[in-house]
Amino acid sequence: MTQVKSAVPPDGEPVLGDMSSAEFRQWGRAAVDWIAAYMDGVEAHPVLAQVHPGDLLSALPAVAPEEREAFAEIFEDFQRLIVPGLTHWNHPSFFGYFAITGSGPGTVAELLSAALNVNAMVWRTSPAGTELEQRVVAWLRDLVGLPEPFEGVIQDTASTSTLTALTAARHRAYPLIRDRGWGALPRGRVYASAEAHSSVDKAAIVLGFGREGLCRIPVDDRFRMLPAALRDALRSDVEKGVKPVAIVATLGTTSTSSVDPVRELADLAAEFEAWLHVDAAYAGTAAILPEMRDLFDGWERADSLVFNPHKWLFTPLDCSILLTRSPAELRESTALTPEYLSTPEDEDVTNLMDYGIALGRRFRALKLWFVLRYFGARGLRGRLREHVRMARTFAEWVEGEEGWEVLAPVPFSTVAFRYVGAEVSEADRDARNLAIMTRVNATGRAFLSHTRLGRHVALRLSIGNLRTTEAHVREAWELLKTAALTVQGESD
Amino acid sequence: MTQVKSAVPPDGEPVLGDMSSAEFRQWGRAAVDWIAAYMDGVEAHPVLAQVHPGDLLSALPAVAPEEREAFAEIFEDFQRLIVPGLTHWNHPSFFGYFAITGSGPGTVAELLSAALNVNAMVWRTSPAGTELEQRVVAWLRDLVGLPEPFEGVIQDTASTSTLTALTAARHRAYPLIRDRGWGALPRGRVYASAEAHSSVDKAAIVLGFGREGLCRIPVDDRFRMLPAALRDALRSDVEKGVKPVAIVATLGTTSTSSVDPVRELADLAAEFEAWLHVDAAYAGTAAILPEMRDLFDGWERADSLVFNPHKWLFTPLDCSILLTRSPAELRESTALTPEYLSTPEDEDVTNLMDYGIALGRRFRALKLWFVLRYFGARGLRGRLREHVRMARTFAEWVEGEEGWEVLAPVPFSTVAFRYVGAEVSEADRDARNLAIMTRVNATGRAFLSHTRLGRHVALRLSIGNLRTTEAHVREAWELLKTAALTVQGESD
Repeated sequence: MTQVKSAVPPDGEPVLGDMSSAEFRQWGRAAVDWIAAYMDGVEAHPVLAQVHPGDLLSALPAVAPEEREAFAEIFEDFQRLIVPGLTHWNHPSFFGYFAITGSGPGTVAELLSAALNVNAMVWRTSPAGTELEQRVVAWLRDLVGLPEPFEGVIQDTASTSTLTALTAARHRAYPLIRDRGWGALPRGRVYASAEAHSSVDKAAIVLGFGREGLCRIPVDDRFRMLPAALRDALRSDVEKGVKPVAIVATLGTTSTSSVDPVRELADLAAEFEAWLHVDAAYAGTAAILPEMRDLFDGWERADSLVFNPHKWLFTPLDCSILLTRSPAELRESTALTPEYLSTPEDEDVTNLMDYGIALGRRFRALKLWFVLRYFGARGLRGRLREHVRMARTFAEWVEGEEGWEVLAPVPFSTVAFRYVGAEVSEADRDARNLAIMTRVNATGRAFLSHTRLGRHVALRLSIGNLRTTEAHVREAWELLKTAALTVQGESD
Repeated sequence: MTQVKSAVPPDGEPVLGDMSSAEFRQWGRAAVDWIAAYMDGVEAHPVLAQVHPGDLLSALPAVAPEEREAFAEIFEDFQRLIVPGLTHWNHPSFFGYFAITGSGPGTVAELLSAALNVNAMVWRTSPAGTELEQRVVAWLRDLVGLPEPFEGVIQDTASTSTLTALTAARHRAYPLIRDRGWGALPRGRVYASAEAHSSVDKAAIVLGFGREGLCRIPVDDRFRMLPAALRDALRSDVEKGVKPVAIVATLGTTSTSSVDPVRELADLAAEFEAWLHVDAAYAGTAAILPEMRDLFDGWERADSLVFNPHKWLFTPLDCSILLTRSPAELRESTALTPEYLSTPEDEDVTNLMDYGIALGRRFRALKLWFVLRYFGARGLRGRLREHVRMARTFAEWVEGEEGWEVLAPVPFSTVAFRYVGAEVSEADRDARNLAIMTRVNATGRAFLSHTRLGRHVALRLSIGNLRTTEAHVREAWELLKTAALTVQGESD
């Protein structure tokens, strides 16, 4: 890979050029082999890193090396210092947050993307990168059953997708804002359920609505936004002269994967002329299952929606799909073409930089193309179904066990539950559940995270890893029961 | 890499699990070998893709495959359909925009990151990812000569870094904005030079300043912001009750790589109590060269600054460093910790999600660590020096040639120039320069982009690729001269 000689020239300057192609072959292959062995043996690692804050920092030199180091040494340090300090998202017993999963074909594609290092900011800087993105996004749109008016782009994360979508929503409500800013514009608000993700708050802050400009609507006992409460909030705001800008519906909330009644919210969005954004970051890919479609009823009426193939579609980080019925509004809300980014074909092509905040764009479509083709639609459905089945099986175990309860329906692959145990105060219950989680996580054999439902702590078990089998879920359940006995015993 | 059997089970469901480790080894190695051969032969490809809009779209199936496809087939299509549709940023004669470059060690590290697929949103989800990021960012801070109060994080791109920095600036000016939004807050403005990047406009739009809330300050004949003009603008705004929120200084503008007088701008920022953000996206890494430090005089007084290792430090896309003296303000401006992201160690650790908009974070620190160690500080300096030397050599050729002129100083590795030729109108000159560029780009032997300086078209030649040698620059120059003769001949 280098065109220049590899010896140190007489003036003492280091060699120029890149790593030689022979060396790249050697270490690229070594990395591939390491990954294969790592994946085969991933269960030998504790899921949650068993390290303390500062462990790695104190093991790393304070200053960057002046002289070049041998790749062998760097790779050795990677294995010795980095790997033991990682929480292993690849471990089949990673059940925290939303368990995500890359895949072999996705990883090979990322390797190719990294090597090609193209930037599809405008069409001409990566025609194939641009058009492949258009095509795979359309494939996904069709797979999840959304109609053709939806067009989209790949963003890094759902936080960015939601920010971008709400920027467009703000633009629709205030067409002057792009040029004039908030200035003396009337106040506006965004509406989302009490269970909506914190990225909606972040977007509200960044866009200048402020946290008070995000109205959190109460949920029912299944953690779904209450349309009647939303209507009240909308009416009350309109009466006060506050403009309803956007409603954010969540399909698959973070705490319980609950499903807002999108059709009713769409009616309200239409009535109050608000933009409807659907956050389906985790659950959206489940719409490739025909038997799940009822849960998504009405999402086809959204102005924009997001779901993340890097969450539950076997695509390595990062890959978030932002779809919209109004690409023109999305573009108008922020697009700018300075002379140095103008191209002769601007009128005839899509320049992806126009559909988001970041100008630079990695070639993310490649991995999605590899994943969709390698597994095929049928293979993707089979894997998602198995995750859903295992989550429901786990929920049945919890339901069937005295002293435990499932706290929410399980539409997808995430279960919110808790240990109730002996009759104690709710505060003690919370403490016990956190203690149970801490114990399980400390074993290194399974990893869970928690949330709060109303005022109570809930544990969460989320299934999304390609390597998870029922045996792993069973082991987590046994660990939980054992931990509960210990915790109960300690406090008795 | 799979725990389940590889045969199709009797119920016809596709196999579960991931690609087998044997298959991953096979195709991972094939990809490594392909990359090595591609890099060795990259000059056989045209730099600018010689395709038409829609070529790839029409070659791809309209629907995603229902059945899984063999990896061999996908990989074959990648080579047959994708590669010819790419503009080759790896080509040593890619001189457009800012020529960027990945590297062998960076690419191997990206492969490892993709496979590990960890998300360092909070410390516990990737302790080593978090602490390695802290350490390599500190290494870079020291290498570019910035003092310790600067701390930082890795963002995807400079657009995101600048948006995040200006969010903090807005927060300092309006501490209530996070909760209350713009509401009735007094108007505020951001100041940047006429040559500042369009990402500053985008940030101003997103944050609710609007384009009118970004004041573009005129530049001198070397394209540097005029401090006197900035002072006038600040005074005039203050008199009108408009609050100066932030000044954005550019070190290395996109059109000419000009360098704003940061020290004077820092004085004005202090006087008017505005946040000083330095956009050194492209040129910042050149501060690792001691002989360049004068150009960066005063940047140590910035409140925040950004530079991109993915631009000119041999790190694959994406990797942008955002440094700030005020990490607390950066955090306070948007950070939120919902219960489901709270961890027991929140008080003792850095949770990287608190320093940006995106919640999910790829393990970007790994490639930076590999690159810094593999090349060593001395190796990085040697390569940057060679790029600068070649750019200045090219500028000398242009200066020495009748009918051509260099349009701006060449502090780094980017040259803005044009063909003047026979006495014609400026409009004709512009058309001729664009025609020259089109001709050169059409050869596939070199790729340049253009800009506009004042009202005139300028061509740009930017050097940043590890494989670029003087012979490549020489060839581009010969192509330019030949194209100029042809264009001149056509119009005579």
